[in-house]
Amino acid sequence: MESEANILVVLPLEEYQREILEAAAPKASFSYRTSQTVTPEDLSKATILIGWAPAELCRHATKLEWYQSHTSGPDAYLKEGVIRPEAIITSATGAYGLAVPEHMLAMTLMIIKRLHTYRDAQRSHLWKSQGAITSIWNSNVLVIGLGDLGIGYAKLCSSLGAHVVGVRRTIAPKPFCVEEVYTGEELDNLLPKADIVALCLPDNQGTRHMMDERRLSLMKPGSVLINGGRGASVDTDALLRALRSGHIFGAGLDVTDPEPLPPDHPLWDEPSAVITPHVAGGFYLPENLDRIVRISAENLRRYFAGEQLMNVMDRATGNRHPLTLSWH
Amino acid sequence: MESEANILVVLPLEEYQREILEAAAPKASFSYRTSQTVTPEDLSKATILIGWAPAELCRHATKLEWYQSHTSGPDAYLKEGVIRPEAIITSATGAYGLAVPEHMLAMTLMIIKRLHTYRDAQRSHLWKSQGAITSIWNSNVLVIGLGDLGIGYAKLCSSLGAHVVGVRRTIAPKPFCVEEVYTGEELDNLLPKADIVALCLPDNQGTRHMMDERRLSLMKPGSVLINGGRGASVDTDALLRALRSGHIFGAGLDVTDPEPLPPDHPLWDEPSAVITPHVAGGFYLPENLDRIVRISAENLRRYFAGEQLMNVMDRATGNRHPLTLSWH
Repeated sequence: MESEANILVVLPLEEYQREILEAAAPKASFSYRTSQTVTPEDLSKATILIGWAPAELCRHATKLEWYQSHTSGPDAYLKEGVIRPEAIITSATGAYGLAVPEHMLAMTLMIIKRLHTYRDAQRSHLWKSQGAITSIWNSNVLVIGLGDLGIGYAKLCSSLGAHVVGVRRTIAPKPFCVEEVYTGEELDNLLPKADIVALCLPDNQGTRHMMDERRLSLMKPGSVLINGGRGASVDTDALLRALRSGHIFGAGLDVTDPEPLPPDHPLWDEPSAVITPHVAGGFYLPENLDRIVRISAENLRRYFAGEQLMNVMDRATGNRHPLTLSWH
Repeated sequence: MESEANILVVLPLEEYQREILEAAAPKASFSYRTSQTVTPEDLSKATILIGWAPAELCRHATKLEWYQSHTSGPDAYLKEGVIRPEAIITSATGAYGLAVPEHMLAMTLMIIKRLHTYRDAQRSHLWKSQGAITSIWNSNVLVIGLGDLGIGYAKLCSSLGAHVVGVRRTIAPKPFCVEEVYTGEELDNLLPKADIVALCLPDNQGTRHMMDERRLSLMKPGSVLINGGRGASVDTDALLRALRSGHIFGAGLDVTDPEPLPPDHPLWDEPSAVITPHVAGGFYLPENLDRIVRISAENLRRYFAGEQLMNVMDRATGNRHPLTLSWH
């Protein structure tokens, strides 16, 4: 019942954003914390949790009925012993469809224009060409994972004149920004044709080390790998070898495995790896938090109206439930 | 007369590219050199010169009737004592409308996503957020100079959801990728509104130090400057001060003043300056040379048919002649 609901929001919200949430459940009581200030006691009272509570504290949420995550891939919260099994988990799919694809495109262009190499040369005050480059226009882009992020990236690349092909788990209607769609069985035939391979996958048993030594070797010589999904989709050691050999021209990685990348990891020193510390999403672009609030508010309205929630996660597979609606 | 023409081509052409040129003037005689191999004697025989002969050698071309440049801004060849006054000079406007705008977009995204800062942090093996970012989507982009490069950059930015406004010398029909077009008189009113200011100007008296201390101070706090045209459009010392103060968040410079940037110039060490050594155009993207060949071949055909050449330069102003056709 709405009037008995204790909603704990663990997000750095502005007043106008709190008002949007509260308007969706006017009889419920709301508490606001941040990742730094939330306590086990706060969690023990919550019937609904929204946002970025540290996963290791979530076992204290013994009354929890529903967890609305702030990420599109709440892998860490799907593990046993984190969110109690009786609670529904919903993702924030839709919140990062602007920020993550733009970050991935920025990495893509940086690498194909050699701007990472020019940045390194700038330190040496070196005014000297670093050689041939390629264009995104007329390039072949393979997007693996056609969720919110993959479709967003496909849109950006196709807007700039790239030929985009997508791979997804199940056959579904073709988005307009993708020329062809395949399921994973075709992956080995598609990898040798792509100039740019972009990963936008959640972390689950079906995706872990999808890009292993064999698949990396199937990539076109001189091609580029971009990962905006989860680090575990790539075998990091195999990638490092493929970069060192020059078989892969460059890799743009916002996510790594392990993550955070330890200070002594050799990937840091590989010049053709461009690494950012899982910041493509997060709250670094103000629009992201606005979108999380809008998704959460719509799900709050649905929850108390007894309607189907959006973005419901399937704990068994780690994917969104196939029949759940998503927010676009 | 075509059969008496001595055409000296100073470009690193493949056989298929030579065939395209020769098909446009089948009775003429062609010689091929590169910037490294061309001699004063080669130049003394040429009636038509195509490509990148070093400017300091061009005074030896005493029989020259027409010089087809390989660049869209052949400033160095317009100066007195380089190409003899009787010769027509045509630019390669149209050749770089893909490569330079893509390079400028790559610099833009790199800076607004702080990828230059993350690249620096990578050297220290630092897994740490560098703070808030912005998006190209919904940003306000001001493009100064709506030639081939400026329109190309405007197209890319508007495809990604930016609001693009353009400034040009003379009022002309509005390209579809630009929401509004103004002449230079409005510049001071437009600068404070733009998140990104992109310069795509030739070097001439009207453009030199267009972005001086006063105009740089009119830019919005935290905005970004991109220069893909000519270094002299910007007062480098004033820019350095604006970057150091933080008033300008970052500058992406493929061209500088002086150029090449001397090894001891302080701009190299300014972290918010992203510098590339005038490589956005050139022959680094194979498509560029193909386009120069196609432009040159069409102009050869026109030349011997007695038709008006495309891209004729006006030596007095340093701009393309307003009535000349351009290649798109």
